[in-house]
Amino acid sequence: MSAKAGKLIGVGVGPGDPELVTLKAMRALGEADVIAFFAKSGNESHSRAIAARHLPAGVTELPLLYPVTTELPKCSNGYRNAIGDFYDGAATKIAAHLGDGSTVVVLCEGDPLFYGSYMHLHSRLAPRFAAEVIAGVTGMSGCWSAAGMPIAQGDDVFTVLPATLPEAELARRLADADAAVIMKVGRHLPKLRRALKCSGQLDRAFYVERGTMADAKMIPLTDKTDDEAAYFAVVLVPGWERRP
Amino acid sequence: MSAKAGKLIGVGVGPGDPELVTLKAMRALGEADVIAFFAKSGNESHSRAIAARHLPAGVTELPLLYPVTTELPKCSNGYRNAIGDFYDGAATKIAAHLGDGSTVVVLCEGDPLFYGSYMHLHSRLAPRFAAEVIAGVTGMSGCWSAAGMPIAQGDDVFTVLPATLPEAELARRLADADAAVIMKVGRHLPKLRRALKCSGQLDRAFYVERGTMADAKMIPLTDKTDDEAAYFAVVLVPGWERRP
Repeated sequence: MSAKAGKLIGVGVGPGDPELVTLKAMRALGEADVIAFFAKSGNESHSRAIAARHLPAGVTELPLLYPVTTELPKCSNGYRNAIGDFYDGAATKIAAHLGDGSTVVVLCEGDPLFYGSYMHLHSRLAPRFAAEVIAGVTGMSGCWSAAGMPIAQGDDVFTVLPATLPEAELARRLADADAAVIMKVGRHLPKLRRALKCSGQLDRAFYVERGTMADAKMIPLTDKTDDEAAYFAVVLVPGWERRP
Repeated sequence: MSAKAGKLIGVGVGPGDPELVTLKAMRALGEADVIAFFAKSGNESHSRAIAARHLPAGVTELPLLYPVTTELPKCSNGYRNAIGDFYDGAATKIAAHLGDGSTVVVLCEGDPLFYGSYMHLHSRLAPRFAAEVIAGVTGMSGCWSAAGMPIAQGDDVFTVLPATLPEAELARRLADADAAVIMKVGRHLPKLRRALKCSGQLDRAFYVERGTMADAKMIPLTDKTDDEAAYFAVVLVPGWERRP
């Protein structure tokens, strides 16, 4: 007489264009009893916005609202504790639904296990419940596709770098890679420009903001005259030079 | 009285599972007059196999068969000339259809501009014809999702390395990255094992073969007792350790 077993599904919904959702993601959405998603308090959830048109009518929604941590340094124990407590609480809420036999889909921008928050739920819940991850198109793929820019080929070494790294380390790593994507550009743009110049790659660099949105902004970085950059902007450094 | 203009569309069909095709890719397939795909002579095309169930009835198919170059070293002029001539010829065939006003879809495993052959057609044709690239789920996303293994988070530096690199360079680069994916493992597995051991990452490494297929093989590399590896096998080195 046991009811059906609960199941956790991390679903990648892609980089922003609702058409870049996979058939497998669509099927999972259709089978969900509960749809969970992360959001900043007071902001619309990006992943829910991408999936909005695909959500089944009447499905239970479970928003997971990040705690406000703006006054805490990211590397501090205070921040780590607040975020750790938040993931513990979110996992507990989801576990209650899984324990009832529900299928819980967690919507994930891009790909669930590539720089996403879903992994913190997966690590807490996959040991106790059936769990599946449905791969998605990453934000960076969305960006270089929108720009029509081949990023890497053949035996290229490809690297993803956060713009938060110190300038000298950014320059060293850029010089050591054939192709690179720099994420979280935001206020680090002036530093990133200097690192790109130092590594000899400024002329190849391409700035992309809202890559798969209708209002995408894509220009060679050398054509960008100001230092204003969105937090989620990326800079692409294509490695593709030795074309046959 | 001008006819409709031709259009080239590079379509990522994902890592292997036909359900990991996006809605946007499906729409492009439905609108195609001609469907082109790469294949090795005498072998089934991987990208066509993935898309097979989604191809419109009666669409014109254009196989692009790689030249046989097994006797030529990959870095030789002979190889480069043979491959360059092949891409020139393929682009000419597609241009004839585009010139007739056809919409030509080129099927691409994974993501079109990430280590794919499509970029060689895009670079030759996009300057002359309307061209669009539809991002896809990469093979590596398919692998770490199938393995349920978070690969990178936060400010991790993530690197893609070809196993063809010299052992010392592999070890140096592995030691310098938080997270890594090593591609084209094949006959390089013994060398890769030594490089992973040298960089202190052997215990974290995970071997994945046919990641999104029903017969996928996924084991910790230290549990793999033989040196047999498929050319398309990958090794994952997750960077995800400092979890909050």
